[in-house]
This record gives sequence, C-alpha cells and structure tokens, in this order.
Amino acid sequence: MSAFLRFTPLTSALPSTVPFVGPEALERQRGLTIKARIGANENGFGPAPSIIEAMRREAADIWKYNDPENFALKQALAAHLGVKASNVCVGEGVDALLGLIVRMIVEPGTAVVTSHGGYPTFNFHVVGYGGRLVTVPYVEDREDLDGLLQAVKREDASLVYFANPDNPMGSWWDADKIVAFAKALPETCMLVLDEAYSETGPKGSTPDIAALIDMPNVLRTRTFSKAYGLAGARVGYVIGVAETVQAFDKVRNHFGMNRLATVAALAALKDQAYLSEVIGNIHAARERIGMIARDKGLTPLASATNFVAIDCGRDGVFARAIVDGLIEHGVFIRMPGVAPLNRCIRVSVGPKADLDLFEEALPKVLKALG
Amino acid sequence: MSAFLRFTPLTSALPSTVPFVGPEALERQRGLTIKARIGANENGFGPAPSIIEAMRREAADIWKYNDPENFALKQALAAHLGVKASNVCVGEGVDALLGLIVRMIVEPGTAVVTSHGGYPTFNFHVVGYGGRLVTVPYVEDREDLDGLLQAVKREDASLVYFANPDNPMGSWWDADKIVAFAKALPETCMLVLDEAYSETGPKGSTPDIAALIDMPNVLRTRTFSKAYGLAGARVGYVIGVAETVQAFDKVRNHFGMNRLATVAALAALKDQAYLSEVIGNIHAARERIGMIARDKGLTPLASATNFVAIDCGRDGVFARAIVDGLIEHGVFIRMPGVAPLNRCIRVSVGPKADLDLFEEALPKVLKALG
Repeated sequence: MSAFLRFTPLTSALPSTVPFVGPEALERQRGLTIKARIGANENGFGPAPSIIEAMRREAADIWKYNDPENFALKQALAAHLGVKASNVCVGEGVDALLGLIVRMIVEPGTAVVTSHGGYPTFNFHVVGYGGRLVTVPYVEDREDLDGLLQAVKREDASLVYFANPDNPMGSWWDADKIVAFAKALPETCMLVLDEAYSETGPKGSTPDIAALIDMPNVLRTRTFSKAYGLAGARVGYVIGVAETVQAFDKVRNHFGMNRLATVAALAALKDQAYLSEVIGNIHAARERIGMIARDKGLTPLASATNFVAIDCGRDGVFARAIVDGLIEHGVFIRMPGVAPLNRCIRVSVGPKADLDLFEEALPKVLKALG
Repeated sequence: MSAFLRFTPLTSALPSTVPFVGPEALERQRGLTIKARIGANENGFGPAPSIIEAMRREAADIWKYNDPENFALKQALAAHLGVKASNVCVGEGVDALLGLIVRMIVEPGTAVVTSHGGYPTFNFHVVGYGGRLVTVPYVEDREDLDGLLQAVKREDASLVYFANPDNPMGSWWDADKIVAFAKALPETCMLVLDEAYSETGPKGSTPDIAALIDMPNVLRTRTFSKAYGLAGARVGYVIGVAETVQAFDKVRNHFGMNRLATVAALAALKDQAYLSEVIGNIHAARERIGMIARDKGLTPLASATNFVAIDCGRDGVFARAIVDGLIEHGVFIRMPGVAPLNRCIRVSVGPKADLDLFEEALPKVLKALG
C-alpha cells in the first residue's frame, strides 16, 4: 500500500521520527523493567500532594472542555510573575509552544540559530517547517552566546533558541549575560529563551521578568514539567510583550489543554512551600549524583537543573556503552547526542531508591566495560 | 508596543481569534453563572465511574511523561476497531489531529472543500496554513455529498472534510453513501471523515472499518470527547492506511499527550457496558429535547449525535435572540453560524436537571421575544 499521494513537498521530504525514545519503548524493545526512571529530566520526587488531591477532586469534571482562553491560569501566572495576563500564553507543554513559535516565524529556508547539541524537539519543529538550522558549538560545555549572536547576524536569522539553564549540559549563564545577549540581538530576530529549569538554577542565573518584558523579540518559555513535577500533565507557558503573545491566538489549538492539567497547574502555583521543599530535594540529589560519579572516577559538571551531566572521560561510544549497560540493570538515563558533549551521560534527579540503584549499577557497568 | 517584526507574511495576515467562545468566557462577560451547560456538545452524563477511578488511581504518576509512541492506547484501539496499531494515530483531541492533517496537505493557495457552516475549527486550521476554502451549501440540512464531490473535482482540491453524523445539524448519511463518496474521490484528494459522533448514530450510519481501511486518501477521525464523556481529557485518534498514518510521526507533538488522558481512554475502552448505558441516556435526552421544542412550537431536526438542532422557524437574528435569552437564565446553548442553518439553535444532551432548566427557560425567552 502506498501513502496519500499529495502531501506537501515539505511533508513528503520529512522523515517519520521520534525526537526521543521513551523509557516505555526501551522496556518493550529490551523486555526489561525500568526500576530507576532517571533519564528524561522528569522529577521523581513527584508533584505536591495538594496537586494530586486537586486533580482527584476535579476528575469527575473531565467531561467539560477546558476554558479555551485559559483565563484562570493566565491570571494566576500573571500574579505569580508580576506581569499582565496579556503577557502570557498557556499551551500543552513547551514542546507545543515551540512548535507554534516556529510555525509563526519559519518558512522554507528561514535561518534559525541554535546550539549544536541543543534541544532536539526545537530542531524537529524547525526542520518540520522547512527552516535552515544554523548551529553553533558549545564552548566549555556552555552555550556560546557570542557565537550565537554572530551567527544570527551573519545569517540574518529570524529566530535563535537556547536554554538557560541549559539542557543537556546543566550549565548556565548569569542573568546579566542573558540580558546583554537579548539587547544586542537585531530586532528582526526572535529570541526564544527556554527557562524550563529556571526554578532550580542558582540565584542570579535567571533575568528578572522586568528585564526583558518590553522586548517584542523575546519569548521566554517555562513549564510545570520540571520543578513542579508535572511532566505528564503538559502545561507550559510563554512570557512576552502582549502584542507578540497575542499572535499565538492566530494559530494555537484553543481547545488543546487538558482540564485536569489546568487544575494541577493552578494548585501547583498555590503550593510554593512544596516547591521550595522539592528544590531542596533536587539540590541534594544533584550533590549525591555528583558524589556517586566522583566516587567511580567520573567528573560531574556543575548543574543548575534537575539533572547532572557526567563527563565519562572518553568518547561518545564509551558513554553510550554506559547508558546501554545501565538500562540492563533497570536504570534509565540518557546522554547528549553530539560530540564533544556526548562524552557525558546525563542523570536526572530522583528519590533515594533510584539513586541507590544508579550507585549500585554504575560500578558494575564500568567494570564490565574495562 | 509593537509586535515582533518578522512573523511570516501568512502569520501576519491572520486574525487573532477563538473559534468558539467558551461558556466560562460568557460567565465572565455577562457576570452570571451557567446552570445548564448544554451548548458545547459535551456529555453531561459524564464519563464512567471506572474511568474517574482510574484517573484518581494514577494521578500521582503525573510526574512521568506519557509514552510518546502511545503504544498501549494504539494497541487497545486496534483491538477495539479490528485494525492494526499501525492504522491508528493518537493525538490531543481531534482538533489537534485536524491541524496536523491540514499542515501536511495544505500550502498557501491549496484548495480545500468543506460545507458552508461546517466545523469552524477545521476552517481555522485551513486558513491558518493559507489554504483556499471552497464551501458547499448544505441541502435540506445535510452535507451535500454530490456538491462536495463536484467541488473537489472542479477545484482540484487536495482535501475535503465533512462530519458524519454531522455537526452542527445532527443529520447523517447512511454508510453506503459515505463509502460511495470516498470511492468516487480522486486519489489526489484526502477525505477527512470526522466521526466524532459515530457512537450515537443509528445502525447503518457509520461505514464498517473494513470498508475504507485500504484507501490511502481517507482518514477517519474519532474522539473520546463525546459519547465517552472525556472532552476535557483531549484524546482523539485517526484511522487510515498505515503508510498515510505514519506521516503523522513527521509532524506531531510526540510528547503532547497528557498521561491521565491516556489512562482515561484506556479505561473508557474497557467499560463498554457504561458506554451502552450512556448512549441510551443520550437517545432519551434527544427525545426529550425534541419534545420540549415541539411543545413550544419549534421543530426539532432528527439527530444522530449528542445534540439536537431545533428549527426556530425564523432567521438567524431570532435564533441568536433565543440563545442570548437562554444564557440570561443560566442555560448555555449554541447555534450554527451561517444561513440558512442559523434559523436553528443547537442543544446538547445532558442530565434531567439541565433539560428541566431548558424546558423552564425556553417559553419565558420565547414569550419575551414575542
């Protein structure tokens, strides 16, 4: 059987792909059970009990569509951030919002700048709309802000993306560097500043909201998936100038939000005490992952996120062998996709039992590899 | 403040819009409380208790991303439908899937055929990708299959959409007419057959899965939002030839599904006894809506869906006044958007208390209108 004959040329040329293989697929492919799920930068400490309780309480209302204007959540986010509701757009996770941003800016051939080894899902969207990806290597395991800026100017790029704190390396720039980068950008280039990990970064690593809120060419994306422990809910948001944010209403899936996801996000914002507690747990888990790594002769990189990149001291083949070895022990981790970042493995935080399994399995795997 | 300067010309030309104003927005705008939510073709009978129980049981796992391959749900749907998992793609509601279909087929200027007064969200997507909408009037409150086919051929359209059973009129064609339409289409035109209401239609109104499963240019969309009572969960799926369905992996948001939505859909498929019960309730509620309408001198149209279109015997201004009058009594209904369909109001099924309110308010509104 052949496929439909008249997909667009752009669609016909795209590969059918999955940006990330999920842990469930690994279980199916390898016939094993994952015991420590510490590979997808999820938050194994889980959401606040108050969030779970709210979802359970509202579960029976699932027959109602979610408010397509996301009024209550936008109001709550605006109060939380100190902006107006018109500065905020809510969507089905940052992945969906990145897709919309790319769609609104990228046509076939449009130059888009990002780091070599940066977020694959962003690249997936850019390729999906026919954009021309221009990548800039990391320098010392950080995104190269000067290099990104030069590439934007050289290529007359319409869009530049990076994450701060960064994924997959866990590194970060101080707020003043980020603001300087944004201010130096041509106004014809949109900066997507992915702040998925902002809650877990050190003081001074995230620009104040006020510092960028007047820039029509800056969109900051944030999520409930990481520190708030709601990856499976799919709630992300963008912050920007109202006139720019309004454009999302041209293209977004207005009825795309799950109703209980909204309930969860509202409850999450209300329980900042739990967030503080979890951030403490995340910091402690980062420390422990670092100790485990050092103890086995590996080098953990400093992290501002909910994961730790660990330099394994050799090449990507070696790091891949560690990842593959750990999964055989039921320990799911991931690794960066390109050199030289792929000398590292990437271990997400998780509860004590998960890290115990990692600590137990890692020396066995290293020993087997020689 | 101005918006970003370099949105694509297509994006810049689009209006910022909402395809449907939600009942929550009406409450905010008018400062009232909706007591009978029977306007959005939701299912006020709600989902099965077994579904709610499953969501509550799995709520604490919301920190995990959903399986990006939707393996379990695709397997369950395949078993339910008698197809292979490769014939199915799952997405965040039919709205999201329609967006993907349009994206894969429509470029600026592509001709797309649909009925005048058909599903606004489909049109929203077509306009959003620069397609050229070619509309065909309803004939006797049904989608005009002959007219749609002629328009496809005349315009060399790449895509044709209609719903069977139909929204907003509730009418339907028998399966053999649908199959004949599909077989008569040029293979360069994709038929999107929206079967959101297939569970509530009369016997013989939905083609067997086998009747269309070998056609690369047919995609059937179905949902858990209507009969299954899960509108707020956002779970839809498409059924088609594997080679065509595979194309969704090129563009879909792989991590877009809410984890509890998947839990709900799996539980829903398992509880077919509850589905039968609800379908009985829906049929009874349709009867009652019809009786209420006739009792007040209005004419209900035959319905195969979870709503009833009621011919109010005059023009769109009159029907609009009824809709606006009912909301003042806390009764939320909707109406078709274009003439001559807009001589009707559209009332969704719901529990007895909701229809009681409708029955009570309708004569008052009609009397006030004279």
